[in-house]
Amino acid sequence: MTEPYALSLSEAAAAVANRRLSPVELLDSTLGHIERVEPRVLAWARLRPEEARRQAERLGATAAIGPLHGIPVGVKDIFYTAGIETSCGSRIMAGFVPTYDATTVVRLREAGAILLGKTHTTEFASFDPSPARNPWALDHTPGGSSSGSAAALAARMCHGALGTQTSGSIVRPAAFCGIVGLKPTFGRVSRYGVHPLAWTLDHPGPMGRTVRDVALLLDAIAGADPNDPATLSAPPAERYVLALDDAGAGERGLHRLRIGVPDRYFFDGLDIEAAGAYRAALSTLGELGSTVRDVRLPDLFEAGMDAHDLIHNVEAAAVHVDRYRTCAADYGQKLRAFIETGFQVPAPTYVRAQQVRTKLIEAMRELFRDVDVLATPAAPGPAPEGLASTGSPVMNRPFSFLGFPSLTVPCGLTLHGLPLGLQLAGRPFEESTILRVAAAYEGATSWSEAVPPL
Amino acid sequence: MTEPYALSLSEAAAAVANRRLSPVELLDSTLGHIERVEPRVLAWARLRPEEARRQAERLGATAAIGPLHGIPVGVKDIFYTAGIETSCGSRIMAGFVPTYDATTVVRLREAGAILLGKTHTTEFASFDPSPARNPWALDHTPGGSSSGSAAALAARMCHGALGTQTSGSIVRPAAFCGIVGLKPTFGRVSRYGVHPLAWTLDHPGPMGRTVRDVALLLDAIAGADPNDPATLSAPPAERYVLALDDAGAGERGLHRLRIGVPDRYFFDGLDIEAAGAYRAALSTLGELGSTVRDVRLPDLFEAGMDAHDLIHNVEAAAVHVDRYRTCAADYGQKLRAFIETGFQVPAPTYVRAQQVRTKLIEAMRELFRDVDVLATPAAPGPAPEGLASTGSPVMNRPFSFLGFPSLTVPCGLTLHGLPLGLQLAGRPFEESTILRVAAAYEGATSWSEAVPPL
Repeated sequence: MTEPYALSLSEAAAAVANRRLSPVELLDSTLGHIERVEPRVLAWARLRPEEARRQAERLGATAAIGPLHGIPVGVKDIFYTAGIETSCGSRIMAGFVPTYDATTVVRLREAGAILLGKTHTTEFASFDPSPARNPWALDHTPGGSSSGSAAALAARMCHGALGTQTSGSIVRPAAFCGIVGLKPTFGRVSRYGVHPLAWTLDHPGPMGRTVRDVALLLDAIAGADPNDPATLSAPPAERYVLALDDAGAGERGLHRLRIGVPDRYFFDGLDIEAAGAYRAALSTLGELGSTVRDVRLPDLFEAGMDAHDLIHNVEAAAVHVDRYRTCAADYGQKLRAFIETGFQVPAPTYVRAQQVRTKLIEAMRELFRDVDVLATPAAPGPAPEGLASTGSPVMNRPFSFLGFPSLTVPCGLTLHGLPLGLQLAGRPFEESTILRVAAAYEGATSWSEAVPPL
Repeated sequence: MTEPYALSLSEAAAAVANRRLSPVELLDSTLGHIERVEPRVLAWARLRPEEARRQAERLGATAAIGPLHGIPVGVKDIFYTAGIETSCGSRIMAGFVPTYDATTVVRLREAGAILLGKTHTTEFASFDPSPARNPWALDHTPGGSSSGSAAALAARMCHGALGTQTSGSIVRPAAFCGIVGLKPTFGRVSRYGVHPLAWTLDHPGPMGRTVRDVALLLDAIAGADPNDPATLSAPPAERYVLALDDAGAGERGLHRLRIGVPDRYFFDGLDIEAAGAYRAALSTLGELGSTVRDVRLPDLFEAGMDAHDLIHNVEAAAVHVDRYRTCAADYGQKLRAFIETGFQVPAPTYVRAQQVRTKLIEAMRELFRDVDVLATPAAPGPAPEGLASTGSPVMNRPFSFLGFPSLTVPCGLTLHGLPLGLQLAGRPFEESTILRVAAAYEGATSWSEAVPPL
């Protein structure tokens, strides 16, 4: 029989719900596995095994309180956790203990999840790396900034996790680590209690080992939050898992669905193996019944990407301005350069960049009249060697800028055994569409079943 | 019998609807009056009497197409009008003829209104004055930036008008000219086809001679517009005129209503006559059944006002950056200085100013749990002498910054015969509450009946 730690979140949740597995058994199996692999992977900023065990015992003694009853999860260390240090991968924040949980953490707990610990993040979710390693090749980056969440999931040290994406920080590490990561629509998931990196670009989202796991996590965390005004004008959240069930399985599962292949941008400097896996994935999507067609990105697309970087710089500088004045030396080199650049931008230039954004969103809404989903590589290639850089967010940045939902699903392994990801992006608030396509693709391939050689 | 031009919009609309008055009779009376007074008031950037007459003839021959059937209106010259020059009070824009109507202009036409012409605006709705004069004292400013709309209404040269407010540009000129002006909630009225002054601060709104007139105009122009995303998350617009009818008249009309008197800010440098009129207005509101109570403005209030000015500078610079590079010399002195200041602001400072705004909005929502309406003076005093300055927006700026609805209703005349205004502000999207209070106040006093000595 499969060890409990190796079950997907959905499988584990079903086993606990059917009382074939107790929350304590699941937790102990997972903690045992963590002891074996964590010394090499270094995914966790801090673990809370005793608290987790007390919670597992309590949950074992009650009826299911929610769909994540007894499921051990990891949370990126920029999500505030009441009574648990939240250091954001920063020397400056070391020892900071929030007095409240982020809304998403509250919702995970309410769904029955057990908080196993905080996963490593790059410094303030920016570009200075964390100690985390890629379980598929320990001398390669797991990506960033949600490095620890991706690595912990790939190494099967938790069953679900939370990450955040400002440029490419959910989808990139998920792709590098061969798992599924979803960046929701801007406004879909509350940012209350999540340390900001860039005000108008930050998106918290779920990461998991399968598409269904991610849908279950999104169900738990999505929805309006009076503490985050950005969520209040969003339409009510659907039940994403139900959307998967309704979609049905089978060969023609994606009938009538139009999948767009962009004419440019996503292929600049694309690794040859990644390009091959991407083309194969498009064939599979076609075989699943969808129409795969070429689409022309708006003229403004590249200007939008420059605007993204400028907004990112400026807002990071705005977030850090006070602390930076007194402790610039305690910042990592990359974030420091980033903040310094932000200080140099004149405000009207920032306003114009936001106006470019409004125009590009409009143009992309137009584009999405002709297709239901865009499919692109999830990264320019597999996880690069070395731990100094977390790799490029270039493939993911467009959807952070637009606020449109995007996800990655495993779509291959390189000759050196490193995972590759397929990125799918959809219309605002149509997370269910990209989840449905990803689930059909996942069901038709076996990439999600691969396990890192730890 | 009252000359048709002298009727309020509501009276004129009722007379036309009952066929006691034809659109042509109403227009001819108004045009005749314009001929008599416009040479002294200079409210109009351009009049379109022939087009207006053709439209009046057409409307006279059909059943009523809407609640403004046959009503002559003026539109500030920053609202785009198809085929009619829109020069924004600027040398640079002279000769610019839009190919489409602003959404608000479309809606006025759909309600049956007749566009009489474009009213003078300060340069690009900023601080460099237009030729318009105050009908109550021709050597005094009518205020700005909606100078022409306020002056035309006060001089009874139209029955309704559109203005815009970024700091105090609807409420201030309305108060200086003894009329009613309403700045709606941000997002309530479309800005599509209105030349921007400052992206996140601009509010188009109605101006009229009575509260009921303004409610009728707001009914016509309010509501979602796919061309202005800011309007899309607003709740559906109410029928503001019905809200007035439902409220009932009578002495106790404001029973249960809590009116707040701020502890500070609105009284700095307040003119003694304006202070007296304000205190008398509070007594009247009390006599009408409301509870008048002191409220403490949030600590952040003054910081918010600094943030407003900074945002205003930066966004004006962003709007004008391209044109300014090539034709700086064609800008007025005040807007030039304004734009230059905007260029000097570092972008992170702008972002922080927007964050101050978010916090102050939150704090003001809290404050509005204890009161339904805030009552303040509409300006520091009556219209100042001279035409070089349009006066201070200091009383109106807070509600432009917050995006909360505000209006002015006449509340007195100085010894020199200049009008004074009472400003009422309410919760977001509760325009009907401030209209109801203003209507009760207007009904209990006779200030709105005063006519300038032209």
